[in-house]
Amino acid sequence: MNIHTDKTTLQDVTTGPLPASKKVYVSPKEAPDLEVPVREIQLSEGANEPNVRVYDPSGPYTDENIAINVETGLPRTRESWITERGGVERTVGRDIKPEDNGNVDGAHLTRMFPVEYSPFNGLDGEKITQLEFAKAGIITKEMIYVAARENLGREQALENAREKLDEGESFGAELPEHITPEFVRSEIARGRAIIPCNINHAELEPMIIGRNFLTKINANIGNSAVTSSIEEEIEKMVWAIRWGADTVMDLSTGRNIHNTREWIMRNSPVPIGTVPIYQALEKVNGDPVKLDWEVYKDTLQEQCEQGVDYFTIHAGVRLGYIHLTADRVTGIVSRGGSIMAKWCLAHHKESFLYERFDEICDLMRKYDVSFSLGDGLRPGSIADANDKAQFSELETLGELTKVAWDKGCQVMIEGPGHVPMQKIKINVDKQLKECGEAPFYTLGPLTTDIAPGYDHITSGIGAAMIGWFGTSMLCYVTPKEHLGLPNRDDVKVGVITYKISAHASDLAKGHPAAQIRDDALSRARFDFRWEDQFNLSLDPETARGYHDETLPKDAHKVAHFCSMCGPKFCSMKITQDVRDYAAKLNDKNQGMAEMSVKFQEMGSEVYLDAEKVKESNKEL
Amino acid sequence: MNIHTDKTTLQDVTTGPLPASKKVYVSPKEAPDLEVPVREIQLSEGANEPNVRVYDPSGPYTDENIAINVETGLPRTRESWITERGGVERTVGRDIKPEDNGNVDGAHLTRMFPVEYSPFNGLDGEKITQLEFAKAGIITKEMIYVAARENLGREQALENAREKLDEGESFGAELPEHITPEFVRSEIARGRAIIPCNINHAELEPMIIGRNFLTKINANIGNSAVTSSIEEEIEKMVWAIRWGADTVMDLSTGRNIHNTREWIMRNSPVPIGTVPIYQALEKVNGDPVKLDWEVYKDTLQEQCEQGVDYFTIHAGVRLGYIHLTADRVTGIVSRGGSIMAKWCLAHHKESFLYERFDEICDLMRKYDVSFSLGDGLRPGSIADANDKAQFSELETLGELTKVAWDKGCQVMIEGPGHVPMQKIKINVDKQLKECGEAPFYTLGPLTTDIAPGYDHITSGIGAAMIGWFGTSMLCYVTPKEHLGLPNRDDVKVGVITYKISAHASDLAKGHPAAQIRDDALSRARFDFRWEDQFNLSLDPETARGYHDETLPKDAHKVAHFCSMCGPKFCSMKITQDVRDYAAKLNDKNQGMAEMSVKFQEMGSEVYLDAEKVKESNKEL
Repeated sequence: MNIHTDKTTLQDVTTGPLPASKKVYVSPKEAPDLEVPVREIQLSEGANEPNVRVYDPSGPYTDENIAINVETGLPRTRESWITERGGVERTVGRDIKPEDNGNVDGAHLTRMFPVEYSPFNGLDGEKITQLEFAKAGIITKEMIYVAARENLGREQALENAREKLDEGESFGAELPEHITPEFVRSEIARGRAIIPCNINHAELEPMIIGRNFLTKINANIGNSAVTSSIEEEIEKMVWAIRWGADTVMDLSTGRNIHNTREWIMRNSPVPIGTVPIYQALEKVNGDPVKLDWEVYKDTLQEQCEQGVDYFTIHAGVRLGYIHLTADRVTGIVSRGGSIMAKWCLAHHKESFLYERFDEICDLMRKYDVSFSLGDGLRPGSIADANDKAQFSELETLGELTKVAWDKGCQVMIEGPGHVPMQKIKINVDKQLKECGEAPFYTLGPLTTDIAPGYDHITSGIGAAMIGWFGTSMLCYVTPKEHLGLPNRDDVKVGVITYKISAHASDLAKGHPAAQIRDDALSRARFDFRWEDQFNLSLDPETARGYHDETLPKDAHKVAHFCSMCGPKFCSMKITQDVRDYAAKLNDKNQGMAEMSVKFQEMGSEVYLDAEKVKESNKEL
Repeated sequence: MNIHTDKTTLQDVTTGPLPASKKVYVSPKEAPDLEVPVREIQLSEGANEPNVRVYDPSGPYTDENIAINVETGLPRTRESWITERGGVERTVGRDIKPEDNGNVDGAHLTRMFPVEYSPFNGLDGEKITQLEFAKAGIITKEMIYVAARENLGREQALENAREKLDEGESFGAELPEHITPEFVRSEIARGRAIIPCNINHAELEPMIIGRNFLTKINANIGNSAVTSSIEEEIEKMVWAIRWGADTVMDLSTGRNIHNTREWIMRNSPVPIGTVPIYQALEKVNGDPVKLDWEVYKDTLQEQCEQGVDYFTIHAGVRLGYIHLTADRVTGIVSRGGSIMAKWCLAHHKESFLYERFDEICDLMRKYDVSFSLGDGLRPGSIADANDKAQFSELETLGELTKVAWDKGCQVMIEGPGHVPMQKIKINVDKQLKECGEAPFYTLGPLTTDIAPGYDHITSGIGAAMIGWFGTSMLCYVTPKEHLGLPNRDDVKVGVITYKISAHASDLAKGHPAAQIRDDALSRARFDFRWEDQFNLSLDPETARGYHDETLPKDAHKVAHFCSMCGPKFCSMKITQDVRDYAAKLNDKNQGMAEMSVKFQEMGSEVYLDAEKVKESNKEL
């Protein structure tokens, strides 16, 4: 490796555990050298129940025992996994060219990541991709790792509530009580799940995407031509995974794309996806007409060697489909889709992505880059949902899925977009059918067009539903959608909203362990363990902040009421009476009249004095 | 009327139209003296399409031609409707008692509303309620009024897109292409819809709740014992309806309840609902055990005369159901439910609300106060959803619905709560069956428990779905749910979120005119008419604010790109090329080669220079 020395200090990224949380590592029995991260939320002493462990994509940033230095990047744990199973060679790699960074130099050039690694390259005739291993019956460390991640809580769930396990409606998804590495292998082998894991992304903590696993979410980041800096982009990635993003797409455009991406890759524990045509377009100065296979292929090569885990490739935007969008209310809204449409029109040729699809597969296979087959003709408005353009493209994506599988590549399929609720399920059903159950990865969908500024919500509704119906990963939408670039707060709101949608999906599907966290939080709520309620929530800081707006005193954190109802009206207190009553009902020796007297005695003790609380707040 | 003279100035309430909007009034041909309000959103000159009219519950506050004075209240237009159809008498009314305001006096007593009106009282043997008129085949002015409101846009929709009208999935709802007063009457007659309209709420602009009409939303306001003031409460009501709340529930507890409610009633153009047991409990110093029929009945009388339009009455919490909640994770979470449970337990008697239900009906009928039969045993957590306690109560509510109908009362039914997605539909199906299709009015439901601080979203998901399945009105949930009292911003976020859910429901059901606004906004978006996009949105201020964060200059409001993609990557621009192309495809004289050349010529002109935009932003 080479170390660059022109160091300037990067802005700090956010580190440290979430409130009351610590990182613990689980070592699967099948590979005791693996350390699978989990976040353990510690409950208060009064809880009288075990701490709650939750799935944790946030990487070493939330481990207080690991020193973070973005200048050196994360530990490259996966490198040894790759070398020990063989089938790869180290190469000198493609030279970095001026156009990779938009031909900028001097002060305008973002400085290179300080450490340079020689990329791996898969050898011909060897198994490289997870799909190839899976088809050959081989269980990789990545498979063992994700099995351990997915199993979180399942044993406990089995013990707690075996009778409840069949309450979900999974619409055909198969959700085993226990996830074995063999189950992971078999799901990958039949194309129903993917582990996006470029052999050159050694910093990765592997995760799996498939409808028989937990529903995942993706957060988009990326500088645009108009705003934002590299420091902001790294922090956005760290920030997004802190709140729960399972993968991150770097959608940067403009200059310095290569160097920005290198910083992100070397510091990312989650799979990174890109849309290579964005960079290819920069290389031809933004004119889609000038694109060609050579510049595109060279861009793929460049990104494969950097370690990008999945590529969005809009190979389904065929010349013959483009006119189908002419009568739409919002035409083509996918950036990649519109670039390819323009190219096809200008040259009057079939898309080179479609024509060269075999070659794309061959290249991506050598690095185990997964396909995310793009929906370039997705609807951009309620009016355009489920139209012929959209579904024609989906059929082509189905055709290409089979080609990619035959080539040994892992594949997922992108989906809409803007879809009213009654038209959502057919999207999943058709995708599963056309694409042989390859994982579906959808953007929203937005269920109405009338709420710019709130499209995390219009789409969070659609996302929860489409996740329930069978989508494997949900691409987040932030409040800024349609209006501007998301800032740090927007990213957080987008991620939390999509964690809600994904979790609601998992609950509805009947994922065996999904309800553990709901139950723990509800018990904390019922017991007035405010701290536990905050800490178990998706966003402890916000929950605590809202509570403290009206009841700021520490004493109120143990108060048996909240400001919503005030002490007199607290229903939860009354329920305790009900429990005592029910207990007595079981005691046949107690007469009804006697019970009545006892309740009269308990009477007003359960109420605190509202006025006193009011006065005590005034003192603050 | 008496006018009180101890005037002090109340805080101003928010008035004035929303951006680019004006209030217009439609007079139905069946009653040309009626003026039914509509908000017309004016599009920019470049729009080349008609202005968009939207349903508008905001009352005179958004009419710039009406001077608002909260000291005198809104115009009492409906008074003449009541007197001209007869069947009522003016009474001196019940004396206001010290306990009505919690026995406070002097500086602690909220001053009375300055004007005092003699209440109407329905005469025995006369038709008073909308249900009684409907059953007798009589169409009231209220029915004509709501028919006009509901018809908004339907003619236009019919002209624009007749072929699209059958694309919805209504799950059995009947959505006519045109709403006639006779249709309204027939829906009310069969109990499938209600117009909550106390004869003493003369300031009301009537609206209808039923699954064959637009999905409505309710916002809760109310001082609690711990925080907030009367001025804030009036402004919260005005603020909630400004953003789209169709009804408002005053859930005040503590002191000054009577006087606070009077200020709200006299200034409210939307139906006001209450939970009378809250006030009754205050009258017995907060001890549920001391409640009795007399104090409750007296409270109903008090509120009937003030003009409250619907009462939540938890008459389904029967003694025999209470023990069913003992093993729940969160017991009883309804305030009213827990109060009644406690009363039943303490006295070991059947609920007096259930036992005296006939008398309650007789009283409410005299003022046409609608029932909102409360779900006192609704689930407060995912774990408790759809359990025996909940559904037993629902069966009792079905039984009581028939009693109330026989007595001539209008009825709707309250529903949960916390319900995972796969268990939502059965709630609607069971409610429709048990309660003879009486309108369902649900709180959320929240689809997961793990996101306090974001429960407008966890519940907005469930609300959109349950609205689609057949719920008539959705009770909003704010971000402060479970944590504290909502402030002004929370109320707005809650209302906008629920407008999204309600509108998504209407779209999915296939309401004939629902998509007009989506289409207009999407066309504005596609045409880069930014101002129109903002103005057509549910929250123009937020949409504009988000846009301006990255592209603040006025020049950018007409820019043919946004900061999300920047000028080079704007897909919408490329689509224009596609349209030109499609147009040429229809022109058979043009050869393919020629078209290719033309596109090459059009090429880069559609792109602006990103760097120039960046520089121009820096100058700000």
